[in-house]
This record gives sequence, structure tokens and C-alpha cells, in this order.
Amino acid sequence: MATERLIPTETIIALDTVPIRFGLGATEELGYELDRLGIRRAMLVTDRNLRQFGLVEKVEGIARDAGVELEIFDHIHVEPTDVSLREAIEVARKSRPEAFISLGGGSTIDTAKAMNLFSTHEGELLDYINKPIGAGKPVPGPLKPHIALPTTAGTGSETTPVIVLDLLDQKVKTGISHRYIRPTVAVIDPLNTLHCPPMVTASVGCDVICHAAESFTARPYDTRPRIPNPAERPAYIGSNPIADLWSQQAIRWCATYLRRATYNPLDIEARSYMLLASTFAGIGFGNAGVHIPHAMAYPVAGMVKEYWPPDYDVDEPLVPHGLSVIINAPAAFRYTAAAWPERHAELAELLGVDTRGMPVRAAAEAAADAIQQLMRDVGIPNGLEELGYGEADIPGLVEGAMKQQRLLVGSPRPVDADALAGIFRDAMRYW
Amino acid sequence: MATERLIPTETIIALDTVPIRFGLGATEELGYELDRLGIRRAMLVTDRNLRQFGLVEKVEGIARDAGVELEIFDHIHVEPTDVSLREAIEVARKSRPEAFISLGGGSTIDTAKAMNLFSTHEGELLDYINKPIGAGKPVPGPLKPHIALPTTAGTGSETTPVIVLDLLDQKVKTGISHRYIRPTVAVIDPLNTLHCPPMVTASVGCDVICHAAESFTARPYDTRPRIPNPAERPAYIGSNPIADLWSQQAIRWCATYLRRATYNPLDIEARSYMLLASTFAGIGFGNAGVHIPHAMAYPVAGMVKEYWPPDYDVDEPLVPHGLSVIINAPAAFRYTAAAWPERHAELAELLGVDTRGMPVRAAAEAAADAIQQLMRDVGIPNGLEELGYGEADIPGLVEGAMKQQRLLVGSPRPVDADALAGIFRDAMRYW
Repeated sequence: MATERLIPTETIIALDTVPIRFGLGATEELGYELDRLGIRRAMLVTDRNLRQFGLVEKVEGIARDAGVELEIFDHIHVEPTDVSLREAIEVARKSRPEAFISLGGGSTIDTAKAMNLFSTHEGELLDYINKPIGAGKPVPGPLKPHIALPTTAGTGSETTPVIVLDLLDQKVKTGISHRYIRPTVAVIDPLNTLHCPPMVTASVGCDVICHAAESFTARPYDTRPRIPNPAERPAYIGSNPIADLWSQQAIRWCATYLRRATYNPLDIEARSYMLLASTFAGIGFGNAGVHIPHAMAYPVAGMVKEYWPPDYDVDEPLVPHGLSVIINAPAAFRYTAAAWPERHAELAELLGVDTRGMPVRAAAEAAADAIQQLMRDVGIPNGLEELGYGEADIPGLVEGAMKQQRLLVGSPRPVDADALAGIFRDAMRYW
Repeated sequence: MATERLIPTETIIALDTVPIRFGLGATEELGYELDRLGIRRAMLVTDRNLRQFGLVEKVEGIARDAGVELEIFDHIHVEPTDVSLREAIEVARKSRPEAFISLGGGSTIDTAKAMNLFSTHEGELLDYINKPIGAGKPVPGPLKPHIALPTTAGTGSETTPVIVLDLLDQKVKTGISHRYIRPTVAVIDPLNTLHCPPMVTASVGCDVICHAAESFTARPYDTRPRIPNPAERPAYIGSNPIADLWSQQAIRWCATYLRRATYNPLDIEARSYMLLASTFAGIGFGNAGVHIPHAMAYPVAGMVKEYWPPDYDVDEPLVPHGLSVIINAPAAFRYTAAAWPERHAELAELLGVDTRGMPVRAAAEAAADAIQQLMRDVGIPNGLEELGYGEADIPGLVEGAMKQQRLLVGSPRPVDADALAGIFRDAMRYW
């Protein structure tokens, strides 16, 4: 921690979180929260697929018992696009509810965030989308109340200040990030995740590991240039002792519980800790930021070949987000380990490796090995080749990843197109 | 984690925190926060003793540069009383500022919380004071913005939902607790703690250890009766996997840095981590709650004999709060260790004891030993005898501690008057 007079690096850690109501049956708290916030008319944003599990009806019942008039929007696009968000925003702007309730995975919660932002304030998507793609305008003021109920142990969107979307014309994934985008309360109930099938559980769980492991290894906040104006501080500030705390615990729990949650959907203990891990990782990465594996994931998902993921009910080929991230992780962490071996050795330890007596550099490598083992154990494909990619795709993949400079600056080791090509090559096949 | 159908125990963890701006020079963020919140007229609540270190002038300058008209209230009573709070509240009710800025230790921040509560809402102190002493009325709605800048690494009041006060007539310490009492933002700058003299640093640091160690060993949330109505959930819910995270890290940092911060006031690294530890412990205990050592501390401070603490500039005998708590801690943890040896063994490990190979019961005892060693190292008196107490005082001390049922319910081992007498006896002399 350097003093400002000595070195012009950052000295400030800014952490915002969301109030959490976590536990079995927490969904019942929704009634109290709606009442406490004085809400009488709300929009329930949800995924129509959740109806078959009775989740939508449960939430509807609780909200109506609390005397809340409910309008339902359930046209969620998995991985929201500018087109899907504009449609949702139009609905919200017409209806102007007093509050939003979101019930679903990251796509649903992010859609509700966008509906809230654009029905509270004027403006168009591109006004707020991160620079250089959009104008990166700061959100002018607080939004309406938004109560988020996640149904997957994955994105952690219920605590993050980010909306992720695909711009279809530009074929690029981008985001809107600002502290006011965070939901008002996160109601986190493991019972709402029991329906999640094995390969969906595995994929979203791998996203959690990457959120946490990337945040934990991100270039530290105090090795970045000082931001003289707090209004211009980026949402992602780099690893720091506060974010680390959340990330570390999330990694430990993923290492302990993801295998069990994947193979035994009714293992309540494993489901509970995986869901808490996803929330913790959300708080960690919503503050510290992710880096190479996420930057690489965007083209891996965007350039999808004929990959049809098991357990996903989709009508087009799809590389699910978590899979598109973890598939790069072992290769990326082998690349970054050289820049910060001590931290990667700690990562290995958090992943369950007994690093006692190991030279630090070997322990750092062991982090990537441990992630590979976890991938194999939960049925993740063996590298990019199994998703249909080959040497000829590398230039395109590199080009796509290079567009994510906002994330690549978080890498603890500088990364350019050549380096990315090498990492993509290493990610083709692991075992 | 039990399902609601099986057992009527609590299943929900509710966690609220405060946005944090932490780091060297964070005080400068005050201007941005005031601007962001649109504040034009604020009350600065501070301790006149801080003027000699230039802290009040610094904060005044930053607020005025941000275009904020400032009124200053600096009549802070160390350990606020009903009388001192009524005086402060009257000032706030006359002035009706748009916001509060507090700069000081726990007494200052708590006074600002009371000024905010009673100048936003109607009512008298006793309306909101915890039952059975007061009516325990819930705070009817959000308060005005309150930016808290702690100047001691102690109470963690900048993140807690509690106002602690002495009722002079009833000679009892009590509190007001409600989620709306939390400050809006905590601006936490280690540079504002450098003036703190050694024995003040040691005493407030011991308060941090106790906050964290008591929260970590508090009766778990899921072994308590279920609260069917979230509005009636107490502020202190018991240890849980979220609060534990904050408490554990606070304990580790106290064990590593309190000695250094005490003896070298300019050790910026030690000051930084102690201040972060106090904030973390505040989040932990503001959620999980404290138990026996804090309950015992109230009469230890209230029945003060001729004890004049070094480094405190006071005109009457005083047992500083942190000292009044830690003095009971080894005896109390020896008592509670029997009820939850595994958790106390973990406490020992967090305090730096190498527990490998130790039987769990011995490791649990080692937690108390480690606290004793830390007390000796930072110059804390050797038990209640050195504060002037003897066998004859025990009935009075027990009576005072028994009034703190709100805290005693948090003990992992049931505790009655006889048990308390035994613990007070064990706390008379340690080495």
C-alpha cells in the first residue's frame, strides 16, 4: 500500500455489495422485501422454462400475497442481445412498474437490469455501453428497486454492476457497467436451483470457478495507475484484500462441491455452497474483474461451430458461457503463472492441491492441473478441438479476444495477439 | 442447512453491508461522494480532540471544496450517554441538515447515527432502544445520507447497524439496532489513524479481536429458532458462512498486525490492515453478533474503580471499551470451548497457533492462551485485579452482565449467573 506522494499508483479499494438473503426457503423473504420497499406494482422478469418446475408460480404467489400487482415478462433470450434487450426495454417503458423482480439465470437478471435502467432513465443502449463500442455514459442516478432471485449457481449477476449483451451487427459481446445497475436485494434460495440438470450445473459452476480464479489472479489494484477522479474509476479495479476474501472462499467451495452438485442434483449441501460460491464470486469479480479466460470466451462462444451441449434445450448450436470460459482456463493460467507464481500457488492450494514442500513455480503450475482435473471430473470437453475448433480458427479467435481490452488489462501478465494465439493453441487439447 | 419442513430452526442468512472506500488518501473520496449524493448542506460530527492532528480541517476543506455548506458539532462524549445523545439530537433537530459526515471513533459515529435517526424521524430515545429497556420500535424508513470516516481501528461502527449508549439513571449500557441505522458510505483511510497513541491502539485493537472471535464462535444461525417474520429477525443472527469469512480474516490480521501497530504508530502497513480488520470485524459482528466477553464488559466498564488508562486524556477513571472486553476473553473462551471445540481450535489457528497434531480439545484451549499472549505483548493489564476488582465485586459484575441477555443468547454454551461468576473469577488474574 503505497502513499500517494511516493508513487502515482492506485491506493483506494472501492467495494459495493448488495444486501443478501440466503438460505433454504429464502424465496419467502420476497414478500417482506416488497412490503418493506412499499411496492404495489412490479414487473416479474423470468424465463418461461422455469414454469415447468413451479418456480414462476411460487414467486407469483408470494408477490401477490404481499399485495403486489404483477406483470410478467418471460421472453428471455439466453445470452441477451441488443435486439432482445430493446424488445424487453420497450415493454418496461410502456408499463413503467414501480419495481422489478427477476427470477432466472444471468440472462434473466441482466435483462431485468436493462429494463430497469432504460425505464428509469432516458437514452439508448449505445449511450451506456462501455467505450469504445458505446459512449460509456455514467448512469445518471439510482434505479427503481430490483429484487433478484438467481436460479443457477453461475453468473452471480444478482450482485454485479454489469449487463452483458451481444451486439448482433458487430458480432461482439460487450457490457454496460455502473454501480447503480446492481440489484437492490439478492434473494438467494438453493431450493430454486435443484431443477438444474447435470451439464448445466457443471457449465455454470465452471463459470463460478473462473470468476473467482481470474479475480484472485487479476493485476493488483495498487499496481495500476491512480484514478484521480473517483467518478472515472472502472468497475473492475483489480485484485485487492477485500475482493480476494470473496474469491478465495468461492474457489474453495467450488473445489469441494461442484462435483457433488453436478452428479447429485438433490445434494442440498452441495447446491447450497455452490450457490453461495456463485454469489461470493460475483462480489469478487464485480469488484476485481476477470481477465484472459473470459476475454477468450467471447469469440469461443461467438464463432460456435456444430456444438450442441448436452442438457441444454436449444434450437441452435451453443457453447454455453461457463464452458466457453473454462475451456481456456488451464492454458491461460499456465501463461499467467509466470508473472505471479506465489498467487497462482495459492490458487492451487485453494483448489485442493497439497502444495507443501513444492517449489513455488511448480505449485503455480499445479493450479492449471487442478482445473483440468475438475473439468474431466464434471464432463467438460477436452479442449477447443472437441468444440470443433482447429488451427485455422486461431486468427479469428485471437481477433475476437483482442476486442476485449477492458478485460485483458486485468491480466497479471501483459498479453498481445501473439500471446493469445499461443494460449488458444495450448487450449486445443488438454489430456 | 436444514430444510424448513424437517426442523423449525433458522435457515436464512441476511447480510447487509455498507459501501466501502478504503485506502491511503481515501478521505479525498468524500468530495466525490458528497457530490454524487447531491448534498449541499451537511453536519460534520466530530471529536474536538482531532483538531490538533489537522484531521477536522482536512475534512472541512474537502467538503467545502465540494461546495457543501458545513455545520460542525464536536461535543462528543466518549461512550455516549442518553444525556449526551439528547443534547446532540436537539442540535440536529434544529439544524436539519441534508446529510451527516462523521469523523472519529465509535462514539462519534454512533452519535451521528443518533442525530440522523432522530432528525429524520419523530420519537424519543426509548422508543427505539432495544427491548426490554426500550420499546424496540423498528426504524420506520431510511435515514438521510451519512458518510462515516473512522479514526480508530476499533469499533467498526462505520459498517454496523447499532448505536451503543449508557442510560445514566439505570446505570446500564444498551443500544438501538436496525438496518437503516447503517451509514450510507464508509470512507476508511489509514492515514486518519496514525495519530492514535499506543495504548489506545492496543485497546481498540483488542475490541476488534473480540468482535471477530466472538462472532466466529457465536451460536450458529441454524441452531436458533426460526423467525417466521423477517421484520422481527434480530440484528445479530449468529455465526454463519458469510459472517465467518469477515471474522476469520479480521482475526488473522489482528494476530499479525496489532503488535506492530501498537508499538510503531507510523507502520503504515500494520495501520492499514488493522483498520481493514476493524471494518471486517464490524461487518462480521454486525451480522453474527458478539456474546460473553462483551456482555461482561458492560459492568466492568460501568463499575470502574480508580483505573486511569495510559494514553487516554480523560478527567475521570475509565476502563476503555476494548480493554473492558478483552480482559474477559481468555476466561470466557475457556468456558465456551467445551461447547464447540472444533470452532475454538480453528480460532486458535487463525490466531497463529500451529495446531497440527494437537488433539482438538487442546487446540481449543490454545485459543485462550494465544489471546493472553497477545494481551501481554501489547501491554493489557493482567486480569480484573489490575483494574481494581476483587472477589467482593463479583455479585455486582454478574448482575450487570446478566442484563445483557441480548448478547448472552449468542453464547455457544448456555450461561447463567453461576457460570458468569466462575468466568469473572477466572478473569481476575491470568499470568
